[in-house]
Amino acid sequence: MKTIIQLITPIITRGIRTLDDVAPYRRDDLEIRHSLLDQGPASIECEFDEALSVPDTIRKAIVAERSGANAVIIDCMGDPGLHACREAVSIPVLGPCQTAMHVASMLGHRFSFITVLDRLRPLIDNLAATYGLSTNYASFQAIDIPVLELLHDPEKLSAALASKALAAIEEDHADYVILGCTGFLGCAGAIRSALLEAGRDAPVIDPIPLAVHMADALVKTGLSHSRLTYPPPSVKQIAGFDLPGFSTDKS
Amino acid sequence: MKTIIQLITPIITRGIRTLDDVAPYRRDDLEIRHSLLDQGPASIECEFDEALSVPDTIRKAIVAERSGANAVIIDCMGDPGLHACREAVSIPVLGPCQTAMHVASMLGHRFSFITVLDRLRPLIDNLAATYGLSTNYASFQAIDIPVLELLHDPEKLSAALASKALAAIEEDHADYVILGCTGFLGCAGAIRSALLEAGRDAPVIDPIPLAVHMADALVKTGLSHSRLTYPPPSVKQIAGFDLPGFSTDKS
Amino acid sequence: MKTIIQLITPIITRGIRTLDDVAPYRRDDLEIRHSLLDQGPASIECEFDEALSVPDTIRKAIVAERSGANAVIIDCMGDPGLHACREAVSIPVLGPCQTAMHVASMLGHRFSFITVLDRLRPLIDNLAATYGLSTNYASFQAIDIPVLELLHDPEKLSAALASKALAAIEEDHADYVILGCTGFLGCAGAIRSALLEAGRDAPVIDPIPLAVHMADALVKTGLSHSRLTYPPPSVKQIAGFDLPGFSTDKS
Amino acid sequence: MKTIIQLITPIITRGIRTLDDVAPYRRDDLEIRHSLLDQGPASIECEFDEALSVPDTIRKAIVAERSGANAVIIDCMGDPGLHACREAVSIPVLGPCQTAMHVASMLGHRFSFITVLDRLRPLIDNLAATYGLSTNYASFQAIDIPVLELLHDPEKLSAALASKALAAIEEDHADYVILGCTGFLGCAGAIRSALLEAGRDAPVIDPIPLAVHMADALVKTGLSHSRLTYPPPSVKQIAGFDLPGFSTDKS
Amino acid sequence: MKTIIQLITPIITRGIRTLDDVAPYRRDDLEIRHSLLDQGPASIECEFDEALSVPDTIRKAIVAERSGANAVIIDCMGDPGLHACREAVSIPVLGPCQTAMHVASMLGHRFSFITVLDRLRPLIDNLAATYGLSTNYASFQAIDIPVLELLHDPEKLSAALASKALAAIEEDHADYVILGCTGFLGCAGAIRSALLEAGRDAPVIDPIPLAVHMADALVKTGLSHSRLTYPPPSVKQIAGFDLPGFSTDKS
Amino acid sequence: MKTIIQLITPIITRGIRTLDDVAPYRRDDLEIRHSLLDQGPASIECEFDEALSVPDTIRKAIVAERSGANAVIIDCMGDPGLHACREAVSIPVLGPCQTAMHVASMLGHRFSFITVLDRLRPLIDNLAATYGLSTNYASFQAIDIPVLELLHDPEKLSAALASKALAAIEEDHADYVILGCTGFLGCAGAIRSALLEAGRDAPVIDPIPLAVHMADALVKTGLSHSRLTYPPPSVKQIAGFDLPGFSTDKS
Repeated sequence: MKTIIQLITPIITRGIRTLDDVAPYRRDDLEIRHSLLDQGPASIECEFDEALSVPDTIRKAIVAERSGANAVIIDCMGDPGLHACREAVSIPVLGPCQTAMHVASMLGHRFSFITVLDRLRPLIDNLAATYGLSTNYASFQAIDIPVLELLHDPEKLSAALASKALAAIEEDHADYVILGCTGFLGCAGAIRSALLEAGRDAPVIDPIPLAVHMADALVKTGLSHSRLTYPPPSVKQIAGFDLPGFSTDKS
Repeated sequence: MKTIIQLITPIITRGIRTLDDVAPYRRDDLEIRHSLLDQGPASIECEFDEALSVPDTIRKAIVAERSGANAVIIDCMGDPGLHACREAVSIPVLGPCQTAMHVASMLGHRFSFITVLDRLRPLIDNLAATYGLSTNYASFQAIDIPVLELLHDPEKLSAALASKALAAIEEDHADYVILGCTGFLGCAGAIRSALLEAGRDAPVIDPIPLAVHMADALVKTGLSHSRLTYPPPSVKQIAGFDLPGFSTDKS
Repeated sequence: MKTIIQLITPIITRGIRTLDDVAPYRRDDLEIRHSLLDQGPASIECEFDEALSVPDTIRKAIVAERSGANAVIIDCMGDPGLHACREAVSIPVLGPCQTAMHVASMLGHRFSFITVLDRLRPLIDNLAATYGLSTNYASFQAIDIPVLELLHDPEKLSAALASKALAAIEEDHADYVILGCTGFLGCAGAIRSALLEAGRDAPVIDPIPLAVHMADALVKTGLSHSRLTYPPPSVKQIAGFDLPGFSTDKS
Repeated sequence: MKTIIQLITPIITRGIRTLDDVAPYRRDDLEIRHSLLDQGPASIECEFDEALSVPDTIRKAIVAERSGANAVIIDCMGDPGLHACREAVSIPVLGPCQTAMHVASMLGHRFSFITVLDRLRPLIDNLAATYGLSTNYASFQAIDIPVLELLHDPEKLSAALASKALAAIEEDHADYVILGCTGFLGCAGAIRSALLEAGRDAPVIDPIPLAVHMADALVKTGLSHSRLTYPPPSVKQIAGFDLPGFSTDKS
Repeated sequence: MKTIIQLITPIITRGIRTLDDVAPYRRDDLEIRHSLLDQGPASIECEFDEALSVPDTIRKAIVAERSGANAVIIDCMGDPGLHACREAVSIPVLGPCQTAMHVASMLGHRFSFITVLDRLRPLIDNLAATYGLSTNYASFQAIDIPVLELLHDPEKLSAALASKALAAIEEDHADYVILGCTGFLGCAGAIRSALLEAGRDAPVIDPIPLAVHMADALVKTGLSHSRLTYPPPSVKQIAGFDLPGFSTDKS
Repeated sequence: MKTIIQLITPIITRGIRTLDDVAPYRRDDLEIRHSLLDQGPASIECEFDEALSVPDTIRKAIVAERSGANAVIIDCMGDPGLHACREAVSIPVLGPCQTAMHVASMLGHRFSFITVLDRLRPLIDNLAATYGLSTNYASFQAIDIPVLELLHDPEKLSAALASKALAAIEEDHADYVILGCTGFLGCAGAIRSALLEAGRDAPVIDPIPLAVHMADALVKTGLSHSRLTYPPPSVKQIAGFDLPGFSTDKS
């Protein structure tokens, strides 16, 4: 039996994330589909951007379930709209941040979150608290050099992330590393190599491949989110969001 | 000097909340203004509804600041969009849930949250965790009879809420009561009287009047949210949200 | 309607705190009254001093309520006698530490407490735990140079406090600053300016003005501490504390 | 590529657990192997039994890795020897309790642990604390009728477990259910049906199938436990445990 | 070598507590001395009473150390003045509440506090939080019948306490019982017997004998409170508290 | 009446620990007996070693109780087998780690654990969590030079430990120090002297003497672990562990 996973990248910009990025994780029995947003921000860098990405993310999750997907992954480390999407659909909806934090907590003693923007610290701290994982969360470490510079130089980016990962291990006693941006996909190997060279054998989580395999495992086990926690919304008038079965508005 | 407070009710339905509701709290030096949404749900009953109310709530907060308001209150006990609004404006933005939970924690030992819909329990638990107040949060108690029946019979509503408040005090050791829906405005007196009759001298928080006076106090003290926690978003393309200064899109 | 607030400075030394200090916060509808102790220590620097200040602080709170005050503020950051005073009177009694910690938790992600004496660390840690705010409490930072030197040189004091506030922001990830001694009244502006110059836009709480405006807000809302948490003491013989209504002893 | 999972049932009794139990979870690319102990208790009902099962469980894990297994699952809800096994091998070692608690925390708000023996409560509470999941752990509910009676009457067992699961949902506000004994394998469906009939749509975790699929997902992702958390033991003399590479003793 | 322990009962009423009460715990090498207060309340039933008992308790502790005592025990379950006394003296000062909570946490999984007055719940909850023991604290259970009736009928008191202890075990999952009033001295045996008869083999702590033996153990080990946590107060003017070495006032 | 304490050193190596080490703590009324293991590791440096030491530790505890001991102390800072031993015997079983953590929490604000091997950090963190003492636990500090070098040079060992203790006080705000290896017995005095010379008056716990005196105090008070928490195991077949009363196997 085949598992169909819908990856929803909650931004409108074309070309940053494509199906090619996740091609290595496809198998005969694992299909990955991809959506971008039609409404929402060009990129996500703060709570404001997240908030504006959520309505269309929900719509894309509903459409995915109606099109036969078996699981949804929200492709952003702030897990925007995770709870609302779970109310809207019955298939498992995974946030890569929540997934990575739980797996890191299972397999290590304390994890650190390594990313670019220091301003995301409160958001990630609050997610750890909401997920009930504050005691497993060693630290948040952010690179403090301009992002644009880094994104066009993957080696420099990996080196900067590795340096923060090493600081997390040596200063904050982390022993598991979470890459804090789904845009770092593919950097995990280089960072892990750098850590091993420094004598620190800590695993590095690339959250999207992990979420893909975890979603597949949940589908195979037959588990989804609890409908007691996330019961479906009642249908009502919603100005600006017409979707039969959810909104009484007409398009 | 006059304080101008903008109350934003994050729904599109006219007539449920009007300026008349908050008339008793106006003073010569305290003006209250009111906004409803143009885009968003008819009512808020779950995370899905909240998520769809946030984008226009943010817009209304920005407009309020630009129109000279000194503080914003989001008129919903789920505090939808609180963090995103704080990124978007410099004036204090208060959520009635956060405000009530902090004041109840200051003035009592453990508070309970009394409301209608049991499905909001995870949302409120998560807010308490995010606000760092889990140890002060005694319980969540919900009436389990249909809402519509109650809303047209204020006495029955007050009696049902009072009964849950009493259970919170006697079973969960609460000693401060928070009314868990801003739509209960005006019920606090009746509930408190019922508690006193039962020999339980616990205060009952009506969150909107409290938020109004707290917002005024913050304005008078000159305090707002930290811009380190909530720095302004960078301007970018945002499909469906055109607002100069935030989005590069044109209307 | 006028709010009358009684500020009780729990020391016997005249001249350190006067009504002039709080003159800027008075309004036509806000009267501030002031008490010093007749019995107790010359200053408060430890738990021992606090303990000896409490009995007469309670007496002053009772007298204030009997004289028509609407709220009491205990003018010391250790909040000495807060719980006992609340048992003794029905009007709101605010401790500046508790008030500042709650407001900082509402408006920022993590607060730090900046003060002179390192020996107060356990006391403040314990207050944060008792108030249920440990997760919002980033750190305690103390100046380690002799106090006397500082108190006669306000600029040096402000510079030293600003330096500790900056350390709290950069090392402990604080984003809200609480001035940890009510004797620093008036320093908040200079410290905030120094932080802004260092590129750190964190608010600085001057606890007494905040407590004054918060007490006023509570009086206007009609809220006080819960009498379930703080029921009145039963009248009994109390050697050394004669006060009709509380003690059966005669003076 | 094929995943080979070694299931170690940490008791010496033959026939209680066989490969037939996990036959439904095998796939062309997923092989499951099984070990019982040669040294250890006939069954596990307390910390004493667990302690005596650990040495041979470790040995079986080492042998499994040497025989080409890609992951190990310890088939007991107390996760006996989890940390020690992880020190001894490099392949992922999963405890069904830890795995189930993390997945339940991801997909629901609060989970309950439903089992037979009330005496395991402290053990499970301590595991939740060690795993950092106390805030997601709603309750422990145990059937209080003799086990032997239940084990020969699967319907009675399922009914008893369902009744406790319902109590967990209604009294303790759980919304995810964990079957607290790996010997309940196969009961999850009946319990979930009973909950649905009672109008409570809460998922029920059968921990062994979940652990099998999760182990497979970790192998596919290339993640294992951190060797910083679990570095290999140094070789030394160990009386009664001769195993080249670990002990200098001879058999 | 002989250990001398000073028991300070922080009330002024003669005859309630005498040296006869602790006679069974004296040994050739263990002397127990006793003090009552000259200034303070007739009994302790709330935070107000506690606050008024502290100044003279501190004085009695100082006098005890000067008279050669090796340890001080404050004979009240609210541990009034514990921190201040530790600042004032170098010998170990034990509070029976703190001592009992730590020993119960060591030897059981969760303890309950069984007492008469429900109004002490916030005080005891706050002590557990301050002592860092909230996770070991199962519940607070109070008898709700008038105290006076009980105090003259020890059997009725024991039966009422045993009934609350049983409720703590069965409803709150406690497995260790702390008698929550030092005035219950001698009741532990009867309560433990009642629990055993009900099939619940939970220990019952009589806090004063425990504190006596613990104080002796600390003296024998050579440990006292940390002077980093509790440094001595600086000498200053203290109106109403003249004591050379602490106050510059004259008697 | 005499107290008999059995010290069980859970390793097989002769000569590292002897009765001479504890000779100073013997009194006329306090006898100390000593056991080493027949089965188990030569030393304990990780969870793997601990796991292999537990079965024979349990056996030695059972034999001790049967031979008339009044209390058992497990002579290793990982407290191996503590819970299982308590199920197996009725007399108090103390772990030096648990005992030291509780006493340090009682007498200071935050304790640090000072030891040699950094790899024990997760184990000690988990013990603190299981014991419910995480909030009192300031830090874990380990010497990072080879152990063998240190063990033959007690002065160098004490100096290295003192340096880490000082770091714990100055950087981690510890004010109580726990020596994290029972093999450091006798070093406490030198470390405390070094701290005093550095102006830091923090007590240093030598865990074995403390455990001896605490065990004596519990015996004198008549308290042991709760049999509700630790009920006796049921007798069953246990391959490799023949002990009448526990196992049905024959030797």
